[in-house]
Amino acid sequence: MSNPEVAMFGHAAYVVPDMEKSLWFWRDVVGLIETERTDEAVYLRGFQEFEHHSLVLMRGKPGEEAYLHHAAFKARRPEDVEAFAARLRGLGVNVENVPAGTEAGQGAAIRFFVPTSGHPIEIYYDMDRPLSPKEIRSALKSQTARKGLGISPRRIDHINLWCGGFPPDETIAWMSDNLGFKVREYIELPEFQLGAWMSVTPLVHDAAFMFDANSKGARHHHIAYWLEEPTEILNALEHFAEHGIKVDLGPGKHGISQAFYTYLRDPASGIQLEIFAGGYLIFDPAWEPVKWEAHEIERGLFWYGDSLDPTAEPDHPFMPTIGVRAGG
Amino acid sequence: MSNPEVAMFGHAAYVVPDMEKSLWFWRDVVGLIETERTDEAVYLRGFQEFEHHSLVLMRGKPGEEAYLHHAAFKARRPEDVEAFAARLRGLGVNVENVPAGTEAGQGAAIRFFVPTSGHPIEIYYDMDRPLSPKEIRSALKSQTARKGLGISPRRIDHINLWCGGFPPDETIAWMSDNLGFKVREYIELPEFQLGAWMSVTPLVHDAAFMFDANSKGARHHHIAYWLEEPTEILNALEHFAEHGIKVDLGPGKHGISQAFYTYLRDPASGIQLEIFAGGYLIFDPAWEPVKWEAHEIERGLFWYGDSLDPTAEPDHPFMPTIGVRAGG
Amino acid sequence: MSNPEVAMFGHAAYVVPDMEKSLWFWRDVVGLIETERTDEAVYLRGFQEFEHHSLVLMRGKPGEEAYLHHAAFKARRPEDVEAFAARLRGLGVNVENVPAGTEAGQGAAIRFFVPTSGHPIEIYYDMDRPLSPKEIRSALKSQTARKGLGISPRRIDHINLWCGGFPPDETIAWMSDNLGFKVREYIELPEFQLGAWMSVTPLVHDAAFMFDANSKGARHHHIAYWLEEPTEILNALEHFAEHGIKVDLGPGKHGISQAFYTYLRDPASGIQLEIFAGGYLIFDPAWEPVKWEAHEIERGLFWYGDSLDPTAEPDHPFMPTIGVRAGG
Amino acid sequence: MSNPEVAMFGHAAYVVPDMEKSLWFWRDVVGLIETERTDEAVYLRGFQEFEHHSLVLMRGKPGEEAYLHHAAFKARRPEDVEAFAARLRGLGVNVENVPAGTEAGQGAAIRFFVPTSGHPIEIYYDMDRPLSPKEIRSALKSQTARKGLGISPRRIDHINLWCGGFPPDETIAWMSDNLGFKVREYIELPEFQLGAWMSVTPLVHDAAFMFDANSKGARHHHIAYWLEEPTEILNALEHFAEHGIKVDLGPGKHGISQAFYTYLRDPASGIQLEIFAGGYLIFDPAWEPVKWEAHEIERGLFWYGDSLDPTAEPDHPFMPTIGVRAGG
Repeated sequence: MSNPEVAMFGHAAYVVPDMEKSLWFWRDVVGLIETERTDEAVYLRGFQEFEHHSLVLMRGKPGEEAYLHHAAFKARRPEDVEAFAARLRGLGVNVENVPAGTEAGQGAAIRFFVPTSGHPIEIYYDMDRPLSPKEIRSALKSQTARKGLGISPRRIDHINLWCGGFPPDETIAWMSDNLGFKVREYIELPEFQLGAWMSVTPLVHDAAFMFDANSKGARHHHIAYWLEEPTEILNALEHFAEHGIKVDLGPGKHGISQAFYTYLRDPASGIQLEIFAGGYLIFDPAWEPVKWEAHEIERGLFWYGDSLDPTAEPDHPFMPTIGVRAGG
Repeated sequence: MSNPEVAMFGHAAYVVPDMEKSLWFWRDVVGLIETERTDEAVYLRGFQEFEHHSLVLMRGKPGEEAYLHHAAFKARRPEDVEAFAARLRGLGVNVENVPAGTEAGQGAAIRFFVPTSGHPIEIYYDMDRPLSPKEIRSALKSQTARKGLGISPRRIDHINLWCGGFPPDETIAWMSDNLGFKVREYIELPEFQLGAWMSVTPLVHDAAFMFDANSKGARHHHIAYWLEEPTEILNALEHFAEHGIKVDLGPGKHGISQAFYTYLRDPASGIQLEIFAGGYLIFDPAWEPVKWEAHEIERGLFWYGDSLDPTAEPDHPFMPTIGVRAGG
Repeated sequence: MSNPEVAMFGHAAYVVPDMEKSLWFWRDVVGLIETERTDEAVYLRGFQEFEHHSLVLMRGKPGEEAYLHHAAFKARRPEDVEAFAARLRGLGVNVENVPAGTEAGQGAAIRFFVPTSGHPIEIYYDMDRPLSPKEIRSALKSQTARKGLGISPRRIDHINLWCGGFPPDETIAWMSDNLGFKVREYIELPEFQLGAWMSVTPLVHDAAFMFDANSKGARHHHIAYWLEEPTEILNALEHFAEHGIKVDLGPGKHGISQAFYTYLRDPASGIQLEIFAGGYLIFDPAWEPVKWEAHEIERGLFWYGDSLDPTAEPDHPFMPTIGVRAGG
Repeated sequence: MSNPEVAMFGHAAYVVPDMEKSLWFWRDVVGLIETERTDEAVYLRGFQEFEHHSLVLMRGKPGEEAYLHHAAFKARRPEDVEAFAARLRGLGVNVENVPAGTEAGQGAAIRFFVPTSGHPIEIYYDMDRPLSPKEIRSALKSQTARKGLGISPRRIDHINLWCGGFPPDETIAWMSDNLGFKVREYIELPEFQLGAWMSVTPLVHDAAFMFDANSKGARHHHIAYWLEEPTEILNALEHFAEHGIKVDLGPGKHGISQAFYTYLRDPASGIQLEIFAGGYLIFDPAWEPVKWEAHEIERGLFWYGDSLDPTAEPDHPFMPTIGVRAGG
């Protein structure tokens, strides 16, 4: 039997204190499409996504701080979910079995915390692929809904996780050794690795793990949805300005990942969203991770556009994070 | 030992009758970057490519018709080249060993003809990754040259091969069974399958195999380079108009693959080039191939824009093809 | 007292046989904003327009053919309306006084038929400038509504009128001599002038007057709305494809006017709409009209993209026209 | 005889201390086209400009600070140049006659200083319209050169002048009363008018006059060239990043004027350049100037994107200015 593999980043689930206000942001303004609503959660996806959801908003307690409940990765084969469970338990990781239906539309899955950082991970394979309602269904068979809702987010892209007040090296190594993530770009400071952009797909990253000078323990920095062209990001900025929403950073282009970005937060929960266009793809198995050193960081982080000095502006709206589910 | 795998489409090599005139098109107008020139061939690549070449122009005899010498796919692991050779020989396929250096920049490789269609294929792994000359080298470490030469083609995307006067079903099956290509979209007519878009990557296709009502034997329809945004395709159309080059079809958008396309030919050799932007990515291992039936073909082929009726316009400039190396 | 002057093209009014179906096209699909509705007519405008309307749909009889009721130009000064009336009457032109309120939102105006071609023209000055309803009003003070309705047409741009089966030279001269229109570009055939693009503003044309091989008498070819970028035209094509509307021509770029165009018709009335982006502006009073001769027509009409041969395809959907109000 | 009128903003002339270094910026990087070079000056224009020049770089002394020599406006009619001279002299303004050929390609002109602010103005009419060299000439007859040099600036758009340590009200009134400029948008603070965007064309501004808290006397803030689409600004940012040039502000979008902007300086002279795309046009003679009050300034100045607080960041690279020719 071959080794279990992760195929892609599938969705993120957050506990939010005010469901209706968060839905205003994610569904009414951003334009994610609601596919199902239960007493506990609302499920959303982009117009080019076939899976039941790429974002789950879970009903929290009023006043509670929002947090990442789990980041979910899809296994390559149905049997890989169980194989991952066995392998992780063999490593001493506490793996939770998640019965089918615990998350609407999803089959049996497993959850665990990354032992080196405490980030909550889910691995699943089975997922419903519901049609969109007729009034928004696309005539184009390779997408589930029409372009044009909100800012037209296409698909989830990646998650950016902060590893607390210590270098992320161990977590990067753990993700590589046990889940098959490859480092695509990274920042190497004289004393330690500042962070790495890692993927199991040709995307530059499905997940990034970063050092966080200001915190102890696992944090969540942002979730990213992909739009196709920079022009769509500019239209989104127009749309946010009309809705009275100030973005935290952008537009600009990262050197690392070549993403044309804008960052903003759900005003109700503080969850940070990156919308970006562009990027590049890595098909070559002989790809050598791109290394950025201290003197190159500025160009690597901000190739052009609205930027900040992360070391000098720790209180910049772009920097704050939310927590993750406790347990790791 | 695990099964050998194909990782990506790497390059195509063509024999052309007039090297200097073809270089005017591919290098001076289109803007591919020359990485090496030998007595027999010129090697080119796009500004975001690290491998030594994605296009090889091989010196043919004056007046000779151009033809595809081989389409080259990169194996996932170094040892997969030899493993493919062994497996194919086991199937009775005549596999040629290609010593390192036969193609500049490339290590040992193998070549063979697809037994069901006669298309010439190369499988390689080792490939030099030369730096670009300083005057065009990018300050962005994830690309080898600056944007801005010609129409700024980024990277090779796919090859479209025509299977002669019989349905491509057998070839599609052979590519799937032996090289691991997955069908992403296909056209199913009442009598037979008209063609399929297949990939080993998240791209909709690394290679397409199509029925060809007008020919017997393997043909080559086009090679495709990817540009990021539709705006770049429009700039390219402006550029071609200024250089007196008429395109064959475009701009328009395919339903299948969602490519915003334009097609044109090297005036000196007749090799057809598709430049396209957009498209979509398939990360989901549970992807179900998109099936287009007779009544949907028009929308599938031409979602909007400059189009033609392939059944009614077999002499349209878009339709003609060139041959492939004999031997299959 | 100085000579009366035309300041701009303001709106076009059409009689349509099926108001609700036409509104589906112009308002619900295209996204023009309804500013007022009376028993006789519905008034619409783009999101960057301050005047009460740039398009009037007038209720016709079911089954009747649609026709242009009038093309309205705004005078530079309030007193110019009366001055134009006096001057035109002095030339023997039959000038109709149109009392304030005849057209909702509009003050006293005059109407007449161009004596050389029979096209119905209105000249007005006073026009209401209503606010948009709050739910679509823009936070940007230089536009009346938010971007994002339908395909987001910004503002009316020009009207294209066909002069029947004789050269448009006389009409072009009449518009120049009496209304101050300047020729910006024109096509000169060996036998006659095929058409001219004329303006009183820095736009390449506020109105074009063209030869029409297939008709006798004045016709209307299209009305044009301006969008900012080619990307918006592509989004519109996506939008039309999703709504099952086939466009007649486009996308492509005219050499003349540098417009990135797409043409389509209101399915209910046959009125042809050009949506375009780009173009260029002429500020220089010393501008010399650009002359296109027979051997250059192809490039002048179709610099790149979806095109046709007007002499060979008189039945092409792009070519048909609608009539104009009788009386000229 | 009718009143003399200004038709458009034609060019700006600057004295620069290091001609070759400034040419590297304006010609080699930005991509303005050199049309003539004399011992004293180099003349440049954009690819869609027909006049001999829109930018003049005049050879200054090494080490000298760069300054604006004059901003040149084209009169509507040849006789208006002399008519303006007569009118201005009647007002007591010292008007200099500039013989034909003083500026290469230009006929007889006049120069004077705005009496309320000291800014140096030229009014001309006659100007050569040279063809571009064949190797860059466009096949499109409405432009003089091909797109594709540097960042492809199309045409000069406006000039932004600072009025020193007192409100610009008087200058705004003078420009309106004597040169026919209309206020299109303006900022009204409780105590004074902060600045106005004024034009004689449908552009939002041909010239802007602003308050300058930090200086006494006339200053020059920036000269602006127009590019068509936001995508072209992003390409320019890519281009500047590759050439090691840091921009001062951008990309972002002004509320006032709707310009999608980026600002940067010629490293050799400090002359600030705005490149922008978009904007809107004002054809309506009944346009009411858009007024922005204190609580709206932020939105007016920075609708979205890279921004600053002008009151808090007077030393921001975007804020510094250069002087103007002494004499006013």
